Amino acid sequence: MKAKTAKESLAVQTQVVLPNDTNVMGNLFGGMLLQWMDIVASISAHRHCKRVVVTAAVNNVSFNNPIAHASIVTLQAKVSRAFTSSMEVFIDVWVEDRVSGEKIKCNEAIYTFVAIDQNGSPLPVPELIPETEEEKQRFESALRRRQLSLILAGKLKPENATELRALFIPTK
Amino acid sequence: MKAKTAKESLAVQTQVVLPNDTNVMGNLFGGMLLQWMDIVASISAHRHCKRVVVTAAVNNVSFNNPIAHASIVTLQAKVSRAFTSSMEVFIDVWVEDRVSGEKIKCNEAIYTFVAIDQNGSPLPVPELIPETEEEKQRFESALRRRQLSLILAGKLKPENATELRALFIPTK
Amino acid sequence: MKAKTAKESLAVQTQVVLPNDTNVMGNLFGGMLLQWMDIVASISAHRHCKRVVVTAAVNNVSFNNPIAHASIVTLQAKVSRAFTSSMEVFIDVWVEDRVSGEKIKCNEAIYTFVAIDQNGSPLPVPELIPETEEEKQRFESALRRRQLSLILAGKLKPENATELRALFIPTK
Amino acid sequence: MKAKTAKESLAVQTQVVLPNDTNVMGNLFGGMLLQWMDIVASISAHRHCKRVVVTAAVNNVSFNNPIAHASIVTLQAKVSRAFTSSMEVFIDVWVEDRVSGEKIKCNEAIYTFVAIDQNGSPLPVPELIPETEEEKQRFESALRRRQLSLILAGKLKPENATELRALFIPTK
Amino acid sequence: MKAKTAKESLAVQTQVVLPNDTNVMGNLFGGMLLQWMDIVASISAHRHCKRVVVTAAVNNVSFNNPIAHASIVTLQAKVSRAFTSSMEVFIDVWVEDRVSGEKIKCNEAIYTFVAIDQNGSPLPVPELIPETEEEKQRFESALRRRQLSLILAGKLKPENATELRALFIPTK
Amino acid sequence: MKAKTAKESLAVQTQVVLPNDTNVMGNLFGGMLLQWMDIVASISAHRHCKRVVVTAAVNNVSFNNPIAHASIVTLQAKVSRAFTSSMEVFIDVWVEDRVSGEKIKCNEAIYTFVAIDQNGSPLPVPELIPETEEEKQRFESALRRRQLSLILAGKLKPENATELRALFIPTK
Repeated sequence: MKAKTAKESLAVQTQVVLPNDTNVMGNLFGGMLLQWMDIVASISAHRHCKRVVVTAAVNNVSFNNPIAHASIVTLQAKVSRAFTSSMEVFIDVWVEDRVSGEKIKCNEAIYTFVAIDQNGSPLPVPELIPETEEEKQRFESALRRRQLSLILAGKLKPENATELRALFIPTK
Repeated sequence: MKAKTAKESLAVQTQVVLPNDTNVMGNLFGGMLLQWMDIVASISAHRHCKRVVVTAAVNNVSFNNPIAHASIVTLQAKVSRAFTSSMEVFIDVWVEDRVSGEKIKCNEAIYTFVAIDQNGSPLPVPELIPETEEEKQRFESALRRRQLSLILAGKLKPENATELRALFIPTK
Repeated sequence: MKAKTAKESLAVQTQVVLPNDTNVMGNLFGGMLLQWMDIVASISAHRHCKRVVVTAAVNNVSFNNPIAHASIVTLQAKVSRAFTSSMEVFIDVWVEDRVSGEKIKCNEAIYTFVAIDQNGSPLPVPELIPETEEEKQRFESALRRRQLSLILAGKLKPENATELRALFIPTK
Repeated sequence: MKAKTAKESLAVQTQVVLPNDTNVMGNLFGGMLLQWMDIVASISAHRHCKRVVVTAAVNNVSFNNPIAHASIVTLQAKVSRAFTSSMEVFIDVWVEDRVSGEKIKCNEAIYTFVAIDQNGSPLPVPELIPETEEEKQRFESALRRRQLSLILAGKLKPENATELRALFIPTK
Repeated sequence: MKAKTAKESLAVQTQVVLPNDTNVMGNLFGGMLLQWMDIVASISAHRHCKRVVVTAAVNNVSFNNPIAHASIVTLQAKVSRAFTSSMEVFIDVWVEDRVSGEKIKCNEAIYTFVAIDQNGSPLPVPELIPETEEEKQRFESALRRRQLSLILAGKLKPENATELRALFIPTK
Repeated sequence: MKAKTAKESLAVQTQVVLPNDTNVMGNLFGGMLLQWMDIVASISAHRHCKRVVVTAAVNNVSFNNPIAHASIVTLQAKVSRAFTSSMEVFIDVWVEDRVSGEKIKCNEAIYTFVAIDQNGSPLPVPELIPETEEEKQRFESALRRRQLSLILAGKLKPENATELRALFIPTK
């Protein structure tokens, strides 16, 4: 299976926040943004592996600033690292100033997808080749996040999480 | 501000998976479940603090088993710990066997909400009193998860994350 | 077929009134509440009989007070009586005061469901055992409502509707 | 206030049953039909009184035959009788045979609406003049249904429900 | 195949503009109106040919006046001309003044549909008989519009578009 | 007002066809695609003028091939020409082969938007500078389309539509 660059998995989504998408404060409803991110990230994961993919985990999403009604929101998703049959996807979300057109980064999220066959069994996926500085950084840190997930799920002992341990125990 | 029990924040949601909610495999679409969890968790957080709450983060969601079309899904949310103005909420998701009625646990998620005033500024929230064994365990581990978030956000140095360090460095 | 208690059929739904759910006055749109009630009541009927159920009738719904945008609405459904292959379900709707958390009863509705097989033919359902005072009262009055339906549908002559006649003709 | 004919309040709605509207059997979902009926009936009530109207009650809906996916559904609503500030509306639902084009009656429903001002207080509505045979019959029976509602709501004693009593006690 | 009158294909749709349907100005969102027109026009085309129909083209829609939130909108669709396997449908849209009830024409659109079999291959459709003055005018001009489409699609040379040429070149 | 390039107005949207979006044949429902195109085109028009924009017309959309359930659809919109206060926008739609990833062009549409102030009055918009060969071609033909619209709306006499006449009357 031929390895692929991160760039090849890029998926872009542009949305306008309509009344239908707002919470009781008149801002973009968190649950709606989670759904938009799930769709664009699943397209990115699909583009990497050309298989049916299903959401395996939402590893981290933070909502920093409220996104007002009528905002133009751009979501950009790219695979950050591929494991045996799973892919970690980063989603960056920008809001566009309606007058200057300037795009302000307002959210960052990490989702994990698994490639499956028609019976729902996992399928191998191609490796990912990071190219830009940011892609490389995300590729590196993906391993730490994976160890953390495995610890939290009780599938890895903290003492074996070498990448993660290094954060806490300075190597002499 | 009077502390409250976890039980007082319980919010329950029962849903049927309709065609509208399914992905291309005919199972519950991940993005839809994320949205359902956001709503039920925000009701739970609101019940704890009686303020307008907004989603601050999705800390961890894992999708273990596909949930088929026509399934009956029960979501149960309870605040697991309150910090100055934020609340961590656990959401447990069960699917009901259509014949035996047995409920099978199929997802677990952790969301964080912040209480805000009409200008969007954070407001203090009551403390949480865990009562059952599970509530106490989730209350304890909430601190570790919070330290982890702060490290990931660059707001806490790993060496000061005492709770988390203990996982990796055995105390003699 | 083993009879079941009303309690076993309880289904609970909690919703927030989002902009999407409001009418031109900014209150919860009647048609949306009817749809929410249909879903929660069908889950209750399903829990009683463990069969596919379809809505047979909406017998009575009254909308007393408008439910404002951003309200938290709790719907609770329980089977009130089972007939050969149909089940009458009561749905109680409460709105929660956003500050005190007090729940105010605002709607009451009665729906009827029929259990069906894959060809759409009716299937027998278990009997219902009422336990609380309210459950017993609703169980009793279900018979009068059924006679009334049959009269309205032209399937029962008023003079044979013994339960209902008693309301109008004082027994000496 | 000038009385109006039933015909002037006619509202017509034609819909196609899309996947989004179906239940787990692939037929039109009861809750969706209830919502469609609510919209078309509210338009009819509005046309009668030219005021904002809100749903006051769903008096009777029966679902006789399942309506299959892809069906063309026609809903027709007309005010059947006006009281001080409320209007009873009949909704007739037809399904169209996709080959012959023949319309088959499949549902009949009765909703009640109230005309309100901007504070939600009831407003008087014009009287209704029935013209056709069916309109006259529905106009007559509306009084019996209203007495029944009042009895069920505990606002009228059965012995004072003269119209309804007549059904059960033969006048000599 | 027996020719049919335009009247036989009439399809009517009445809608209320709910918050869900509005754009950032609080008026009916253009995309939503396009969707409503597509549904009502497809019903009209189906009524003409009694076959499954799919949208082939949107030839012309103009949005003249904004349609405010809470407006009552009536859409009326009728086949204007049938070709071998396609049908041109005119949709007229009216908004109703909420006080006087007067209907004001606010949009006019032309869609084209094709009748297809289960493999998606085109099927012949009956001819259309225009009766009223307006129906005849729309029937006549349909040919010019069709030539124009064919030219724009590069399937007809301008010099062979006799109907259309006549507009520009006065016949002596 | 500074003229802008076509490239600056580019808006991209990627969607997956979910069950909710399909017609009775299981393919993407025409009305849904019209709505997606309206949103992405309005974002493009907004990016050109930085004003609130509303849909003024849908000039031409053709649906060539059915788009199957589960397809990945990419919509790309760019302003093709700006007039005093209106902008013509081209939308190109591609479907992605799920295995090869190859994008196949399947639709092309032309929408017109108008920039408005808070009272709904038209506002001037910047001129458009076409750069690529395709952008130049679309810029040129926009004038012909505009003359055609004006003739169809009865606002321009065919003999004054110089650009359009040239198509039919060969210049000697």
